[in-house]
Amino acid sequence: MRHDYVDLKYEPKGNEILCMFYVEPAEGYTLKEAATHLAGESSIDTWSDIVTLSPIIAKELKPHVYYVNPRKKIIKVAYNLKLFELGSIPQLLSSVAGNIYGMKLVKNLRLLDIRFPKAYVDSFLGPLYGLNGVRQVLEIKDRPLLGTIVKPKVGLTSEQHAKVAYDAWLGGLDIVKDDENLTNQDFNDFETRVKLTLKARKEVERKTGAKKGYMANISAATVDEMVARAKIVKKHGGRYAMIDIVTVGFTGLQSFRKENEKLGLIIHAHRAMHAALTRNPYHGMTMLTLAKLARLAGVDQLHIGTVVGKMAGDKTEVLNIRDNIVKKKVEKTNLNFAQNWYNIKPVFPVASGGLNPVQIPELYKIFGKDVILQFGGGVHAHPEGTLKGAKACRDALDATLAGISLKVAAKKSKELALALKKWG
Amino acid sequence: MRHDYVDLKYEPKGNEILCMFYVEPAEGYTLKEAATHLAGESSIDTWSDIVTLSPIIAKELKPHVYYVNPRKKIIKVAYNLKLFELGSIPQLLSSVAGNIYGMKLVKNLRLLDIRFPKAYVDSFLGPLYGLNGVRQVLEIKDRPLLGTIVKPKVGLTSEQHAKVAYDAWLGGLDIVKDDENLTNQDFNDFETRVKLTLKARKEVERKTGAKKGYMANISAATVDEMVARAKIVKKHGGRYAMIDIVTVGFTGLQSFRKENEKLGLIIHAHRAMHAALTRNPYHGMTMLTLAKLARLAGVDQLHIGTVVGKMAGDKTEVLNIRDNIVKKKVEKTNLNFAQNWYNIKPVFPVASGGLNPVQIPELYKIFGKDVILQFGGGVHAHPEGTLKGAKACRDALDATLAGISLKVAAKKSKELALALKKWG
Repeated sequence: MRHDYVDLKYEPKGNEILCMFYVEPAEGYTLKEAATHLAGESSIDTWSDIVTLSPIIAKELKPHVYYVNPRKKIIKVAYNLKLFELGSIPQLLSSVAGNIYGMKLVKNLRLLDIRFPKAYVDSFLGPLYGLNGVRQVLEIKDRPLLGTIVKPKVGLTSEQHAKVAYDAWLGGLDIVKDDENLTNQDFNDFETRVKLTLKARKEVERKTGAKKGYMANISAATVDEMVARAKIVKKHGGRYAMIDIVTVGFTGLQSFRKENEKLGLIIHAHRAMHAALTRNPYHGMTMLTLAKLARLAGVDQLHIGTVVGKMAGDKTEVLNIRDNIVKKKVEKTNLNFAQNWYNIKPVFPVASGGLNPVQIPELYKIFGKDVILQFGGGVHAHPEGTLKGAKACRDALDATLAGISLKVAAKKSKELALALKKWG
Repeated sequence: MRHDYVDLKYEPKGNEILCMFYVEPAEGYTLKEAATHLAGESSIDTWSDIVTLSPIIAKELKPHVYYVNPRKKIIKVAYNLKLFELGSIPQLLSSVAGNIYGMKLVKNLRLLDIRFPKAYVDSFLGPLYGLNGVRQVLEIKDRPLLGTIVKPKVGLTSEQHAKVAYDAWLGGLDIVKDDENLTNQDFNDFETRVKLTLKARKEVERKTGAKKGYMANISAATVDEMVARAKIVKKHGGRYAMIDIVTVGFTGLQSFRKENEKLGLIIHAHRAMHAALTRNPYHGMTMLTLAKLARLAGVDQLHIGTVVGKMAGDKTEVLNIRDNIVKKKVEKTNLNFAQNWYNIKPVFPVASGGLNPVQIPELYKIFGKDVILQFGGGVHAHPEGTLKGAKACRDALDATLAGISLKVAAKKSKELALALKKWG
């Protein structure tokens, strides 16, 4: 090799972008060799010695592999900020998460974390509301938010959909969301659904005096269509737009976030398809990386895992993601770089997927108050249906906050007693 | 389990969406159990028995797992078209490639192929030019197109960039492209680069009388910015827009494709980051799936692999992808469903990544005439630089088309002789 970007004495500068990778070199390559090629391919290099490469470029812009751990197969690379276009997640990914995944000299490659310097952080909008802004809108100060996903995933008419939402709110839940694959289908078109569901929301608000939220899935094939759907939400008094951020993609998300400066909706980010990228522990990228990118882009709420339930994701990892999207200054751990978020607001973490009300004490112990707990089947599969299922959730939360066990609380709540019988 | 979507006697209907998955069930689950849960989660289901699910919905919209092969771990699922929003790739992915990757009851899951029925195909724009349209614009009838990527990947000034492109065209290449991580950086801003490079293109066209193409990378954080960049390209007489389709995402791509009805540029699709999804043979999705989605969305040119060179991808797979993006009617193989593309135009396949001119006879044998062959270092690392490197490529292609061996042709081409010495 004519270039060697490995320099273990190099001290990364505060204004550089740092990446941490897990790298399994292909047979015949050392980790250092793979590291040099990866660092080059993700920045200034091509695969061969070329005449057009000037020494000045090479000196100023070259990457530095400043950490190589052959036992753990982890490397860290420092990139000059000039290599990147400010404010563009697609350009960042095309650099540090692009061609390198396909190189023959690696067998597996996983992007573990990215550290963003101040100038880079400052070039993004971040959340419009963030965790505290959402609390203000919903007027809920210091407890977890409770939500549900209308089920079945798809197949209900707009009328049925609105009724399920109505029951869930009336039972005591704060927010109701569409499922990730429900957008604008013939059996339940977007405008009718939003109109009827928001009408139901207002009725419940009048009855209960509580603020409620409806997260309408505006994900669409074009940004224009997403904006059009957001305007329908606004027209009917909605507060939320939900986006499937991975299947829509980062340009779709960043485009909508920019438009949202005027629209002023809370953005709820669903992460469907993330596990195609994040699940294999040796390849792709971590959910942490996706979550940090989502925070930069500016989602207000983000699914991060449940620790318990039907979806994969272990406790240490989920809580680490939580810290990285909530804290202003994140300390370094073995999973992540230190990260200062400067003026970027915290994201409200969401735990969703296979949860039921009996898990609420455990979930509260794991996540504390700053979490949105979403129950799908855990509400609608309650023996007495959605309304009672919602009440069971709320009763379970109220008991937990009061330091009362669910068993004791169930004596005064028939709904909770039924839930305990089913899921306890 | 209360639902069983496995029905091996079911005959899929012509108007259904069909998916083929590789599934490794987690310990304790059979393939059929995993299949039923996957089919449900990707359509109407939730994880529990729920009151809101009406028998009518269940009957009309339920998925059918009509093929289960425990030895190969392959299943096929038929989905009612009503489950999907026409014309929306994000919605399709949120359904059949969404949450299912994260379910605990699968260990690995790979989406192998999707079959689109006519109504679904008809709901997409497809390529504006396609393979034949590109040939018409560049006035190249029946040979592979030759191209290069300006190298180093990033770091050149706009002036240096334009000079490299000039040399490549003058040496005999048809098209020149930006690298995937070059968009709009301080050292080489988009507008100056495009202006100077297109000026260089016109000079070469005047000198040689041949039509040339410059694929400017318009990938950006917002669709508005992508359109603004495309307008800069138009203003300076450009014919092409290049997009990093995976990092930009499908909403960004579909949005731009729609705008492009008015702009009228040829869309060159780079696939940086695809291997994060496609490379692991047991998880994620195939490049075939991504390529078919890109054809629906409407890219005119798409990177599909090289068979030879620095990037992974085997011959059978690459040629299978080629067939699926080029043919009007694709026959069923063990890798893919039969697919009729109706009025959707063919995409021009691109082989790019670590190629050099000495491989041209082999590449021609593999791909035939309908391919764009791109050489990066294989042009610029020629011992005498870009101009001569380009001439070596063109001489190699001309010899191959004339049925002359490179060795013989090298007697009359010093450039080819040097290339043979270096790469032969």
